[in-house]
Amino acid sequence: MTGPDLSGSVDMTHGGGGRAMMELIRDIFLRHLSNPILDRGDDAGLVEAPAGRLVMSTDSHVISPLFFPGGDIGSLCVHGTINDLAMMGAQPHYLTAGFILEEGFPLADLDRIVASMARAASAAGVQVISGDTKVVERGKGDGVFITTAGLGVVKDGLNLSAANARPGQAILVSGTMGDHGVAVLSKRENLEFETEIRSDSAALHGLVADMVAATPRIAVMRDPTRGGLAATLNEIASAAAVGMALDEAQIPVSPDVAAACELLGLDPLNTANEGKLIALCPAEDAGRLLDTMRAHPLGRAAAIIGEVTGEPSCLVQMKTAFGGTRIVDWIAGEQLPRIC
Amino acid sequence: MTGPDLSGSVDMTHGGGGRAMMELIRDIFLRHLSNPILDRGDDAGLVEAPAGRLVMSTDSHVISPLFFPGGDIGSLCVHGTINDLAMMGAQPHYLTAGFILEEGFPLADLDRIVASMARAASAAGVQVISGDTKVVERGKGDGVFITTAGLGVVKDGLNLSAANARPGQAILVSGTMGDHGVAVLSKRENLEFETEIRSDSAALHGLVADMVAATPRIAVMRDPTRGGLAATLNEIASAAAVGMALDEAQIPVSPDVAAACELLGLDPLNTANEGKLIALCPAEDAGRLLDTMRAHPLGRAAAIIGEVTGEPSCLVQMKTAFGGTRIVDWIAGEQLPRIC
Repeated sequence: MTGPDLSGSVDMTHGGGGRAMMELIRDIFLRHLSNPILDRGDDAGLVEAPAGRLVMSTDSHVISPLFFPGGDIGSLCVHGTINDLAMMGAQPHYLTAGFILEEGFPLADLDRIVASMARAASAAGVQVISGDTKVVERGKGDGVFITTAGLGVVKDGLNLSAANARPGQAILVSGTMGDHGVAVLSKRENLEFETEIRSDSAALHGLVADMVAATPRIAVMRDPTRGGLAATLNEIASAAAVGMALDEAQIPVSPDVAAACELLGLDPLNTANEGKLIALCPAEDAGRLLDTMRAHPLGRAAAIIGEVTGEPSCLVQMKTAFGGTRIVDWIAGEQLPRIC
Repeated sequence: MTGPDLSGSVDMTHGGGGRAMMELIRDIFLRHLSNPILDRGDDAGLVEAPAGRLVMSTDSHVISPLFFPGGDIGSLCVHGTINDLAMMGAQPHYLTAGFILEEGFPLADLDRIVASMARAASAAGVQVISGDTKVVERGKGDGVFITTAGLGVVKDGLNLSAANARPGQAILVSGTMGDHGVAVLSKRENLEFETEIRSDSAALHGLVADMVAATPRIAVMRDPTRGGLAATLNEIASAAAVGMALDEAQIPVSPDVAAACELLGLDPLNTANEGKLIALCPAEDAGRLLDTMRAHPLGRAAAIIGEVTGEPSCLVQMKTAFGGTRIVDWIAGEQLPRIC
């Protein structure tokens, strides 16, 4: 059997609730994402409630460009929502996806994106169980925006929250900082480096499962996406009214990313990641947690980068490589628009 | 305490993951939607799993204009997702919301929309437990798009699905057809009618709860949104490989909407609804179901409009008011773009 004809582009009829929309759903969405729940074609996906507490999350994805080294908006929207669930310690189970398509967007590109979503979902063991498609006129969107929502289950006894940060806890990261932001910006600006810098986009729930099994006392997990490590640590510091003391020499940054950041005027600590996490745990558990992280393919470059302090003004401070101390602040403006 | 300063507009920093985004979340989203789950500020909302089977659904909303008689994108996105859950017979519990904002969108309008979401959610007894905000450059979006996802619970024993349609079942609608589409189009085109036509946008789960309690043998429920009654009945007919025979004289259409449709060249049966449902049930239950629907404020104009047939080509046919028969088809193109 040959596939459907995907030589055309999205037009307004694809959002009209009529026959053209049904064909789009059949030829692209169901062809790639098919599963018994989605295939029923009902208004919502019906599933057996898994045992445990539920977590639910959503992310809208407006990344530009849509395709970049190491991923595309399709894989990114799956990984992004899985990671939000994973940061609560959850096992992700189900996703929904809402597509906002711009008139004129090539069907072949949409097909490629949905195929990538399907691969990412399958690799992560999650199913897309319900979806929606809207079309906006040319110039009222930008190719495709995808909003995913996810449902996962947390084991009893596990309570991860930014509010759990306490002085004395160790701060760990699972790997190098800034890869995603630099990869996307390089592609957007058509920059070429000697080695291609690839996004770290990845689903982190497997790493998280190993971590919570080894160290049930993990207090906080977060993925440092928009705004990078700096924004995420400041968020945690604000939420729990604590300070942080980092050691710059311990923060992993790949030499290629460091060089690209230098050239682009970026700080890797403000630059987005899509396959890394930050974890806070009691100091006495830090060594074991680090070993567990390093034993997982997505945590090989994990490091202990500092500790939580009782510093009353909730600042994130860093001992620099030159022996000084600087404040690691949120960026005031937007360093990199549309990075996810 | 005076409220936050909302005299400005959305700029790219509001999507950057930094301080401006945190302030937007605090001043608009949390101010209106606050609840203990959302207020934790984690990457996902954590809830106790309610007993029963779960349903999950999503809808992206790109309606234009954003404000229309009878509602706005804020109330619509809450009602739309609740209704998708309700059509599975579910009690809705939780929503997530992903916002895609266009640079330059007035903060005061965003505030009005989020306030409207909050009122709709509160009235319906659901909580928004997680959200996300992205910003795109001017000309890459259109004010605001909102994608909601919802989680609900279905009682054991209840199995509603389009695939359950069987010859002999009665077809009921809960009220007049076409109100939403005509209301939005009138506003978009600046048309004035003697009486203002208002959208029927409403949350239908209360009506549904009464219906399934009175008539547990309901086989199918659907809300006839985009594409109207015609598209929804054709979808059901295709899914279950059945035909349908309608009686035009029984299909409720308000005189104002009928007159406006005449003027605008629309067919009320192809025109969107946002607070109406279609139900299929065994013929012997139809009278009781009709009584139950009419006893609910959102079902006062309910009617039995036809029956499912074994007609092998899966056509939806209608006895017209003039005594002839016509086929009620999907519309081929898009009658009304961006109606939801």
